[in-house]
Amino acid sequence: MGTVNAQTTNRLSQVSVKGNKFMTANGEVIIFRGLDASDPDKLSKDGHWNKEYFETAKSWGANIIRFPVHPVSWRNHGKDEYIKLLDKGVQWATEVGLYVIIDWHSIGNLHSEMYQNPMYETTTKETFEFWRTMAQHFKDNTTVACFELFNEPTVQGGQLGVCNWQEWKQLNEEMITIIRANGGKAIPLVAGFNWAYDLTPVAKEPIDARNIAYVSHPYPMKRDKPWAAKWTADWGFVAKNYPVILTEIGFAGAEERGAHVPVISDESYGEAITNYCNEAGISYTVWCFDPQWAPTLIKDWNFTLTRQGKYFKDALQKAGK
Amino acid sequence: MGTVNAQTTNRLSQVSVKGNKFMTANGEVIIFRGLDASDPDKLSKDGHWNKEYFETAKSWGANIIRFPVHPVSWRNHGKDEYIKLLDKGVQWATEVGLYVIIDWHSIGNLHSEMYQNPMYETTTKETFEFWRTMAQHFKDNTTVACFELFNEPTVQGGQLGVCNWQEWKQLNEEMITIIRANGGKAIPLVAGFNWAYDLTPVAKEPIDARNIAYVSHPYPMKRDKPWAAKWTADWGFVAKNYPVILTEIGFAGAEERGAHVPVISDESYGEAITNYCNEAGISYTVWCFDPQWAPTLIKDWNFTLTRQGKYFKDALQKAGK
Amino acid sequence: MGTVNAQTTNRLSQVSVKGNKFMTANGEVIIFRGLDASDPDKLSKDGHWNKEYFETAKSWGANIIRFPVHPVSWRNHGKDEYIKLLDKGVQWATEVGLYVIIDWHSIGNLHSEMYQNPMYETTTKETFEFWRTMAQHFKDNTTVACFELFNEPTVQGGQLGVCNWQEWKQLNEEMITIIRANGGKAIPLVAGFNWAYDLTPVAKEPIDARNIAYVSHPYPMKRDKPWAAKWTADWGFVAKNYPVILTEIGFAGAEERGAHVPVISDESYGEAITNYCNEAGISYTVWCFDPQWAPTLIKDWNFTLTRQGKYFKDALQKAGK
Ligand SMILES: [Mg+2]
Ligand SMILES: [Mg+2]
Ligand SMILES: [Mg+2]
Ligand SMILES: [Mg+2]
Ligand SMILES: [Mg+2]
Repeated sequence: MGTVNAQTTNRLSQVSVKGNKFMTANGEVIIFRGLDASDPDKLSKDGHWNKEYFETAKSWGANIIRFPVHPVSWRNHGKDEYIKLLDKGVQWATEVGLYVIIDWHSIGNLHSEMYQNPMYETTTKETFEFWRTMAQHFKDNTTVACFELFNEPTVQGGQLGVCNWQEWKQLNEEMITIIRANGGKAIPLVAGFNWAYDLTPVAKEPIDARNIAYVSHPYPMKRDKPWAAKWTADWGFVAKNYPVILTEIGFAGAEERGAHVPVISDESYGEAITNYCNEAGISYTVWCFDPQWAPTLIKDWNFTLTRQGKYFKDALQKAGK
Repeated sequence: MGTVNAQTTNRLSQVSVKGNKFMTANGEVIIFRGLDASDPDKLSKDGHWNKEYFETAKSWGANIIRFPVHPVSWRNHGKDEYIKLLDKGVQWATEVGLYVIIDWHSIGNLHSEMYQNPMYETTTKETFEFWRTMAQHFKDNTTVACFELFNEPTVQGGQLGVCNWQEWKQLNEEMITIIRANGGKAIPLVAGFNWAYDLTPVAKEPIDARNIAYVSHPYPMKRDKPWAAKWTADWGFVAKNYPVILTEIGFAGAEERGAHVPVISDESYGEAITNYCNEAGISYTVWCFDPQWAPTLIKDWNFTLTRQGKYFKDALQKAGK
Repeated sequence: MGTVNAQTTNRLSQVSVKGNKFMTANGEVIIFRGLDASDPDKLSKDGHWNKEYFETAKSWGANIIRFPVHPVSWRNHGKDEYIKLLDKGVQWATEVGLYVIIDWHSIGNLHSEMYQNPMYETTTKETFEFWRTMAQHFKDNTTVACFELFNEPTVQGGQLGVCNWQEWKQLNEEMITIIRANGGKAIPLVAGFNWAYDLTPVAKEPIDARNIAYVSHPYPMKRDKPWAAKWTADWGFVAKNYPVILTEIGFAGAEERGAHVPVISDESYGEAITNYCNEAGISYTVWCFDPQWAPTLIKDWNFTLTRQGKYFKDALQKAGK
């Protein structure tokens, strides 16, 4: 298939924020539940950036899919080539009826421009330009429901220098200004420190912008069981006032390939987090719909389910009814 | 002609600021009225970076000419080669008796380092280094009367991120510090936001430096007619306390080649702006003394006049008497 | 000799700060007195980055040697190759019993990223990454006693832009945070403005970190004779509360090769500075243990002494007894 112009086929209803909910243009509340793709560039090289991938996600009961754009892939492809990849994905998502999150997939300290490893290297300038480009390109596209501004902010205990909440807040507010001034209507998703786990500063100093949502990545080992009260204190409380979406959740059994801190757990985590989200109306996407990026949902490209694959496919299908 | 050392031939009287006036070393008030060249690099490639160009400008009645140095040209040539171009122009200007403004011709947000298009890309570091270089190179040259620090500051309604007046003020003050510490005696010209139109913040928070002047670019469509009261409120009031120079004015008839927002107008604009300047002792240079960069003053390299060419040549000649 | 792993042979006692003193792990106060090497890269190209170099330094009575890592050398070699040079030097230092200072040898304004000349060009990002790398690499190495964060901070009277103490303090504190979070146990050395001469701001606004020391470079011409009271006011007073180390002192007779401002003086300077240090328990290293980098301690690679070579070798040997 040739290049797809994402601007031309808009079949999904525009999503916006109403109070602490995501809402479609027809006034229906929508709770996002879906899957985290691996980088479109990676999927493309593997030969799986195709409609089947999106059809399968849809068949699991997902209503949204997240594309993690790694800065290094963005630079290596060049903006024009990478946008072609995104356009294809957005087109397939539109055709099967999945919303899309575009996620600037860096990990580290954007303020000091130090990162967890070279794959995540970027600059404030490049990040701002990425959002200028995305805003202009997907301006009138309603499939692209959310722009996740920066995947996982962290100073890594100081290894990546210093960034305080005011500085982080200001960087996010500038990205939001850029997106909106350039016509972007997707909902900006804002994450907090500790690898996007911690939203406690939102209580006193929320981002100064409307029509946004907050993100947490509450992998199982971020906190000891029982989780619920801690989750509420750390990020769940935000859902009282704003839409919240957990753009990365997931677990791997200790015996599974790719098991690593902080994701090692079992089905009890799956139950805890999905119950927590269902009760509070919180959205989520599960990491990762790729057989190589752990914790994986699938063992191979026949989409053979892993432990969490079984759990979350079932959860999505129940929720999708 | 070979390389000219701009340091050696100084025939024009050193200009400085006295109250709200430009003044020569002999104590005469000077109001600058002149022309905006296109980029010396562009003129050189076209075969018109030559003494005839300066002689013609002088014959129109100009007493100053402005060189817009585009960051991309500066980088592509390399500092040493670009300085040779400048030196030639400054030498011809000196020979015919024209003062020179060196203008760092970027458009955008220097604070966030986002620009209107790639031609204007620069960095704070590159901008500071440019002024360090200019200050050292033209230290003892009196022809180079003004250093225009940054052509057109704008956040483009947020498309280029965020910059407040305090941040912009601080950037200008640091440039002025660099220029003076490196021996530069040219008068720094400071512009405001909205593509160098708006000087309202100067009322309460002027730049903290002496011997400077302010810039506005009041193209006709920045405001609806009648203009005078609006101009006074937006930038003209500054002329009570500081020298003001409009380093870009000009118009194109709607029917003329290159007519575009915000320059479309007619001779009534020419009359309004020149009368306004004459009454308030405000200096100006007219964009653009090149047949390709609109609004153009000339139609071709025979210096055939456009509509504004006729108007402004006449105005310059009257004023020059 | 092949690549040396600096992590494996630790024979020198870990140094830390106790009150205003450097102290070894066995609780002995240590006053550092030693030599400033030239850049390991330069010495390596000259064929003198070898054990003899360290044995000679030791034979003079030194207990420490400082490696000035020039940013341009760091970049040109690449991190991996440059680290091999450092590892060799640290190994030889360990073998002969010399502590090591690793010095990020830039001169200029890290805040505005403007430098005295191209050799000293770096960025905040590169500087932070340098310390991340050093901290991780020399984590368990006790020979590397000190990390000198930035050789000579200066705005050169505004030629390099603007930096106030609060900005400089914050940059140092962020470097210290990075070093410690990455496991670095070497003592951070902090310098003040005026080419690392002036520590007066420390009186009211010391760096907010423990286990650090302060640096001054009181070359003879920084102040007129008599020096002592001025030195106390400018930097010596700091030694009441913190360890102080003069990581560059030295003089050249006016007749000697390489004599330049601010180093021209004679043996009276040597006497004054060594007496001053001895009385106040201040550490020092002498610039430069290389026959080409002035003021030189040696005339040639036979280690023939210059005037200051004679003076300081004698002073080190007396102090070493
Ligand atoms: Mg920065
Ligand atoms: Mg993650
Ligand atoms: Mg313009
Ligand atoms: Mg900066
Ligand atoms: Mg020095």
